[in-house]
Amino acid sequence: MVSEVAMPSRYAHLSIDAERTMSMIEASCAWGSTPDGGMNRLSCNDDDRKVRDWFVDEAKKCGCEIKVDQMGNIFAIRPGQNNNLPPIGLGSHLDTQPTGGRYDGILGVISALEVLKTIHANNVTTYAPLAVVNWTNEEGARFPPAMLCSGVWGGEFSVDYGHSRTDPGGKSLGQELERIGYKGDVPCSYDANPLLAHFEVHIEQGPILDVAKEAIAVVTGVQSMCWYHIDVAGREAHTGTTPMDRRSDALLGAAKIIIETNRFVTEGELAARGARATIAVINSLPQSINTIAGKVKMGLDIRAPADADTAKVEELCRNSFQKIAEEAGLTVAVDRFWTSPALHFDPTMVNCVRESAKSLGCAMELVSGAGHDSVYASRKVPTAMIFVRCRDGISHNPAEYSSPEDCAAGAQTLLGAYLRYDDYVRKSHEGGS
Amino acid sequence: MVSEVAMPSRYAHLSIDAERTMSMIEASCAWGSTPDGGMNRLSCNDDDRKVRDWFVDEAKKCGCEIKVDQMGNIFAIRPGQNNNLPPIGLGSHLDTQPTGGRYDGILGVISALEVLKTIHANNVTTYAPLAVVNWTNEEGARFPPAMLCSGVWGGEFSVDYGHSRTDPGGKSLGQELERIGYKGDVPCSYDANPLLAHFEVHIEQGPILDVAKEAIAVVTGVQSMCWYHIDVAGREAHTGTTPMDRRSDALLGAAKIIIETNRFVTEGELAARGARATIAVINSLPQSINTIAGKVKMGLDIRAPADADTAKVEELCRNSFQKIAEEAGLTVAVDRFWTSPALHFDPTMVNCVRESAKSLGCAMELVSGAGHDSVYASRKVPTAMIFVRCRDGISHNPAEYSSPEDCAAGAQTLLGAYLRYDDYVRKSHEGGS
Repeated sequence: MVSEVAMPSRYAHLSIDAERTMSMIEASCAWGSTPDGGMNRLSCNDDDRKVRDWFVDEAKKCGCEIKVDQMGNIFAIRPGQNNNLPPIGLGSHLDTQPTGGRYDGILGVISALEVLKTIHANNVTTYAPLAVVNWTNEEGARFPPAMLCSGVWGGEFSVDYGHSRTDPGGKSLGQELERIGYKGDVPCSYDANPLLAHFEVHIEQGPILDVAKEAIAVVTGVQSMCWYHIDVAGREAHTGTTPMDRRSDALLGAAKIIIETNRFVTEGELAARGARATIAVINSLPQSINTIAGKVKMGLDIRAPADADTAKVEELCRNSFQKIAEEAGLTVAVDRFWTSPALHFDPTMVNCVRESAKSLGCAMELVSGAGHDSVYASRKVPTAMIFVRCRDGISHNPAEYSSPEDCAAGAQTLLGAYLRYDDYVRKSHEGGS
Repeated sequence: MVSEVAMPSRYAHLSIDAERTMSMIEASCAWGSTPDGGMNRLSCNDDDRKVRDWFVDEAKKCGCEIKVDQMGNIFAIRPGQNNNLPPIGLGSHLDTQPTGGRYDGILGVISALEVLKTIHANNVTTYAPLAVVNWTNEEGARFPPAMLCSGVWGGEFSVDYGHSRTDPGGKSLGQELERIGYKGDVPCSYDANPLLAHFEVHIEQGPILDVAKEAIAVVTGVQSMCWYHIDVAGREAHTGTTPMDRRSDALLGAAKIIIETNRFVTEGELAARGARATIAVINSLPQSINTIAGKVKMGLDIRAPADADTAKVEELCRNSFQKIAEEAGLTVAVDRFWTSPALHFDPTMVNCVRESAKSLGCAMELVSGAGHDSVYASRKVPTAMIFVRCRDGISHNPAEYSSPEDCAAGAQTLLGAYLRYDDYVRKSHEGGS
């Protein structure tokens, strides 16, 4: 059921400050910036500590109480009228890829801070408390997997699992949180430290908005995603002494697998329905230029808006890989090691975003192709997202860029969506308006 | 010009001892054997030292003087009638791959020792001195590149270059030769320590003899070989957020390159003329399952009996790769970093092998697909090789196997070829017989 949501007239005059938003992005990127204009702020390094300190200071200026949980997730909570309710969360992450940009995650946290500042500057008392949330280690670039600490909060991982994740140097996330002073006492779980809902602004990280010339999009959910290990095995043999017709070349088989996989999602109905399949990781063994590859290991990523379509692509791949292997005297093993079903965000939350976007003249709706902290948040609470256009769809790259206008549109949409939802909560509890 | 070569009648009764040959293989494989029946005797490790000591002892029993050069190459020299001449060398190598077999290289050195023992037991005084040679680090498995120390002797590499090669643990070949006591005083070069000629027995390391059911082959030369680095560059992007029609997927391009390369040498005239092309080494970047590969690095190995054919395959590849890249919005760079022109062994030496093989009823002739110490030896002196059948063409593998009968055929062919050449040398110097 989608509830009607409207902007309370008493908030109609509220507007975020675009310049302040950009100044905050600039300020927060002082720690971990790289000469090429990008960012390198791996979770829990010294730069991450500094930007966390800055975040806490900024939030405190707006009357927030700071809660840090066992995974270092920071909840900056501004009281509302009904403080028996959990806060409505506006969150994202401040950590980056090692060669990342200034918007992925950062824009979400800064938009939330901007909403907080706007509300605070206008002496608004919201109904529910407001929490600006910085989730730890969303990228997973230093401590795999991604979305680790929203995942702990959302019940996907245990705290022990989270603490025990290690970086390539052997340091654990638990140790590093302790070192930077952000291993908090608050239990990391929805049950112990709940939110009422979760909104997130994030750059699209794809080219659809840029191609469509739209500033922002309403995100209605997240694609169905599956990850696979593919192991192709043939027979090692000398490249110089083994006739071409007496080979079991694992890499030749792998090449056919890559091409067939691509064909399944670039032709016909699956392509029309937005299915995607990618093989991006490949390594051959024994890595000797004059020994025919005996083994090839690959990673396969299949996505589609509908679960039925990821299943269909998987079936096509499995059948085709088997045929390729048999024809070439190879064996192939396909192991699905991660599955994330299609996610449909809460209709009322999405409607709040939709109505807010509409007020800016934006109507585009997208299904997120990537995972975000909102995926795990949505396991526990009503969740919705706002996508902001990024130039050429480039992300995880120093060239990542969203214009000041688009960043402002994202923050303004967040403000409107959040205030609508807060009013919806008020009505739910008080009745009427 | 091919000189007539015949077995001197005074040697017609000489025959190698098949059992002794196999006993020596067994004895020499005492050091570095692995539970799976294979060998792990990396150059200049403790097992290599022990088998060198054994080799020296065995040669001394046959009245040999031992010369060890700066690169650890061992020359066990039995005097002849005319000791003003350099010795005729019978050589190969005792080092193995880390997961190697009992025949690659080892069979060549043992066959040479067997010829030495046969001659010595029969009190034969050859015309020129005889040298059984153990070349250091042929495999290059510990100290790349392969054929390093025959390469220094043959003038391809300097002694300093050879000494400075390091293993993955950072130890240099020079240090390790010193440690095992095999860094000799004899300058490592043809000029300072010449041979008159070089014969080598080696397992085929391919399946041609096995398929043809032939025990041995006369090797007339070595294929033309070229090695290339191929770098494909596209654009990194998120697998989940980047529509299929907006990608520059370096790995998809690489897959097409692998398939086209294979096609060029499996169809038409180039296939008929025995051209081979292999891509066995591949790695993608950034090795993240949800980031489209922005870079793919591959190694390409092209071979053919004729230089013109490797050039033709290279041309087809370059044109095709360029076309694939242009169509997919990629760039491709092809760098030929190693070239080894086709080698044609000395006609008289080959004829000695041919006549000797014929006496055993063997007539097959092959061009070697792989490099051997004989490649660098042939830079300086007349050279020829004998290939021995290995089961299924398997080599560089614990399953490597040549039957005792085939090993004996190899050693007997070496004996006959060597005695023919020695007689040819005698005639050249003395005239008549």
